[in-house]
Amino acid sequence: MARHRTGAAATDVAAHAPGAAGAHDDARAPLPAPASLQLGAGLRPQFPILNQTVNGHPLVYLDNAATSQKPRAVLRALSDCYEQYNANVHRGVHALSARATQEYEDARAKVATLIGARNCREVVITRNATEAINLVANTWGVQNIKPGDEIILSVAEHHANLVPWQLLAARTGAVLRHVRLTPDRTQLDMDHFRSLLSPRTRLISLVHVSNVLGAVLDAAYVAEQARAVGARLLLDCCQSVPHSCLDVSALGADWIVASSHKFCGPSGVGFLWGKYEVLEEMGPWMGGGEMIQDVFLDHSTYAPPPARFEAGTPAIAEAIGMGAAAEWLRELGMGRVHDYEQEIGTYLWERLTSLSPRITAYGPPPGDARSGGRGRASLVAFNVEGLHATDVSTLLDHAGVAVRSGHHCAQPLHRELGVPASARASAYIYNTAAEVDAFVDALKDTIQFFDDVHGA
Amino acid sequence: MARHRTGAAATDVAAHAPGAAGAHDDARAPLPAPASLQLGAGLRPQFPILNQTVNGHPLVYLDNAATSQKPRAVLRALSDCYEQYNANVHRGVHALSARATQEYEDARAKVATLIGARNCREVVITRNATEAINLVANTWGVQNIKPGDEIILSVAEHHANLVPWQLLAARTGAVLRHVRLTPDRTQLDMDHFRSLLSPRTRLISLVHVSNVLGAVLDAAYVAEQARAVGARLLLDCCQSVPHSCLDVSALGADWIVASSHKFCGPSGVGFLWGKYEVLEEMGPWMGGGEMIQDVFLDHSTYAPPPARFEAGTPAIAEAIGMGAAAEWLRELGMGRVHDYEQEIGTYLWERLTSLSPRITAYGPPPGDARSGGRGRASLVAFNVEGLHATDVSTLLDHAGVAVRSGHHCAQPLHRELGVPASARASAYIYNTAAEVDAFVDALKDTIQFFDDVHGA
Repeated sequence: MARHRTGAAATDVAAHAPGAAGAHDDARAPLPAPASLQLGAGLRPQFPILNQTVNGHPLVYLDNAATSQKPRAVLRALSDCYEQYNANVHRGVHALSARATQEYEDARAKVATLIGARNCREVVITRNATEAINLVANTWGVQNIKPGDEIILSVAEHHANLVPWQLLAARTGAVLRHVRLTPDRTQLDMDHFRSLLSPRTRLISLVHVSNVLGAVLDAAYVAEQARAVGARLLLDCCQSVPHSCLDVSALGADWIVASSHKFCGPSGVGFLWGKYEVLEEMGPWMGGGEMIQDVFLDHSTYAPPPARFEAGTPAIAEAIGMGAAAEWLRELGMGRVHDYEQEIGTYLWERLTSLSPRITAYGPPPGDARSGGRGRASLVAFNVEGLHATDVSTLLDHAGVAVRSGHHCAQPLHRELGVPASARASAYIYNTAAEVDAFVDALKDTIQFFDDVHGA
Repeated sequence: MARHRTGAAATDVAAHAPGAAGAHDDARAPLPAPASLQLGAGLRPQFPILNQTVNGHPLVYLDNAATSQKPRAVLRALSDCYEQYNANVHRGVHALSARATQEYEDARAKVATLIGARNCREVVITRNATEAINLVANTWGVQNIKPGDEIILSVAEHHANLVPWQLLAARTGAVLRHVRLTPDRTQLDMDHFRSLLSPRTRLISLVHVSNVLGAVLDAAYVAEQARAVGARLLLDCCQSVPHSCLDVSALGADWIVASSHKFCGPSGVGFLWGKYEVLEEMGPWMGGGEMIQDVFLDHSTYAPPPARFEAGTPAIAEAIGMGAAAEWLRELGMGRVHDYEQEIGTYLWERLTSLSPRITAYGPPPGDARSGGRGRASLVAFNVEGLHATDVSTLLDHAGVAVRSGHHCAQPLHRELGVPASARASAYIYNTAAEVDAFVDALKDTIQFFDDVHGA
C-alpha cells in the first residue's frame, strides 16, 4: 500500500475533491487553482525538455503515465558515466571498471532505498517492468504452477500483466481468473476478488494503480487475503513507484515491478523487487555471463540473486541513471510528490469533468469513499461523446498539448468500459495548474472545432 | 564471413605479420610502429573519456572487447533524445511521441544498414546479445528442438552461447556437441566440426570471432555445412560487428547477435538479426505491450516481427544511441576500421609476444595460414609464466593501463587452455601504437616488479 508519509495527503485531497457531485456541470468559468500548487513551477528548470514550443505553443506534456521526463541530475549521471568511467562491470580490476561496478551497485541501493527494501540484493535490474513480470512467470511460475492452479488477475490489467500469464497458462495448464469492475465500472470489485479466492489460488498479480482508471488498489487487504489462502502476490507498481511512498517491507507483496522511464529515469531499465527468500527459490531464466558461478560444457551452476537474473552485460549507464532518479525523488520527498500530485490530479479531474456534460472520465472521482483515503492517480482517461479519442489528441497536439489516445495497453479494460479507446491526460510533479488550464482550454476548442465541422 | 571491402586487408596484415616466427624473441628494443597507424590518434578527440589520467598516468584503455567507448555523436544522440523529444514510442499521436517513434525506427534501419540487412524488420532490438540468444533458444529452440536433436556449439563459446542451450537441453532433451580446438589450441578444429555433423544436427551456434583466441570463424564454410545437413545457424557476432564489414545477406547465417556497447553505442541495448522468414516462424517469448495485436482476457494475438519480440517500452534512447553508433561507424567506413585494427592488432601481438619468452599469447598468430586471409581480432589474451593474470592487470592499472583479467566469460575455453584465467588487451579504432607501447612497457615493468618481489 502507498504510505502517505506526510499523513496529510488524504485530508488535502478531500479538501479539493467534490467527488462526483461537481462533475458534468457545464461550467465555463475555470475553477481557481489551489494556492498550494507551487511545486511544479519550481521544478521545471530542472527539466530542459519542457522548455520548448510545439506547433507554435508552449509544450504542455501530459503523457507522463506513458513516460516521464528526466531532470538534469539524471542526464548528468548518464553523461558522467559515458564521459568519465564507462567500463564493463563485475569483471575488471582496472580503475574504470571498479568505478562502474561501484556506481552500478550504488544505483541498486538507491532504488532499494526509494522503495523501502531492507536488502539491496532484493532488487533485480531488468529492462522494464514487462521483463520483470515475464521473469517471475518464467521462473517461479514455471517451477510452481501446475495444471488447475489458479492465477488471479483483473480486467483492468496492463497487457504486461496479462500476456505473460496467458503464455504461462498455455505452458502449465493454469487457470486465469479475472477480478471484474464494480457495477459503476470505476475500480476493481473487491467482493468479486474475495469470491475468486480458493485453495487453488497460487498467485495473485494485480495492478497497484491503474494506468486508465487511476484507481489505487487496497494492497494491504489484497496481501492479507493472499496470505490467508497461501498465494503469492505480485503488484504492478509502474504507476505507484513514481508517485507515492512505497514501502515494500510493509506492502505485503512478494514481488513488485516498475520501469525507470516512468519515474524520471532513463529508458531501457526497470526493476523487479522480490523478497530475498522468494528470489532464492527461483531458478535461472536467461543464461549467460554475470548470472553464473561456474560453467562447464554440459551444465552450469548459478550465482545467488540478484546476479542470477541479470544475464549478460547489464544496462549499466541506464541503471546508474535510474539510481540517480531514485535519489533525486527521494531527496525531493515522495510525500511531497504524492501530495502535490493529489492536488494537481484533483484539479485536473475537476476542471476536465466540469468542462462539458459530454465528457466521460473513467475511474473513481478523487473523493470516492471506497478509495479509503488512498486517493487516485494524477491522470484522467476520458472520452468526449461523439468524438474519437485519436482525433481529440491530434487536435490537442496542434495546441501543443501532449496527451495519449488509444487503449493504453489495456484492451480488455476498454472492452469493459464499452469503448475502443480513450484519451488520457497524466500529470507529474513538473506540471502546473496553468498547464491543466491550457489543456482544458485546448480541449474546449477541440470540441468546438469538431462541432463546427460536424455542423453540430 | 567478414568481408574486407577494401580488399587490401589480408595483404596489409601479411606484410606486418611475421607469424609465430617472431614470437618469443626476448627483444628489448621496441618494434617500430607501422607508419600507417594514424587513424586512432585522429579519432581520439571524439571520445571525451579517453582524455584523463588514471593513477597519475594517461589512461590507456585496452579493454574494448569488454566494452567500447562512445564518440560525441552517440552522446549527442542520447542527450538530444532526452532534452528534445523523449516520449514513449508507437503509441502516441503527439509531436514528441511521433518524433521518438521515427528516431527509434530510424535507428533500427541504421543497424540494418551497418550489417547489410535487406529489411530493417529483420532487426529485433534487445538488451544485449545475451538476451538475443536466449530469445532464439526460447522461441525457435522450444518450438523445434526434440529429444535427441543435436546442437553444435564449441569449447570456445562465451557463456552467453553455452548456458541458454544448456537450459534448452534440460527442457527439451537436446544433446549438446562441442567443437574442440586444433591440437595447438589456437582455434576451432574444423575437421572435428565436420565430424559432428549429422542428420540429427538441428542447430549450429558458434562464435564468429573469439573474445579470447581472436580467431575468426570460417563462417562461409560453416554456413555451407549447416545448409548441407538442414541445420539452422546462429553466429555470435559480438566481436565481429564492431570490427569488420558484415554482410548478413551473404553470411549464410539464420541469426546473428551483437551488443551495442561493444560497437560505440550505449549499454542496455543490442540486437538480434534474423532472416525474416525465420523470425516469422518464431512464436512470442516475453508477453506485454508492443508485441501484441489484440489482447483478450484468456488469449492474445501477436504482432509480426520485429515487434513480436519487443515486449514493453523498449530501450528507446539506447536504441537511438545504437543507431547513431551504427551510422558513425558506417560513415567512418568499416573497411577502414577493419584494416586499422588488423594493423594495430598485429602490432599488439608482435610487441607483446616479443617481450619475453615467458609470455604465452593465445590464439592463432596474425599471419596464420589456416585463417585464410580472415586475420585475427585486435585483441590478445595472454599469461606470463609465474604470474597471476589478476596481479598482472592490477599492476598495469597502476600504470594507467586498463586490461581485463579473468575467464572473460569463457570458463570452458580456459580449461581447454589449461589455465584458470588470462589477461587480455583489446584494441579499438581509437587506440594508438603509442598506447600499445605504453602497455608493453608497463607489462615489462610489471614482470620486473614481481621478479624483484619474488627474488627471481
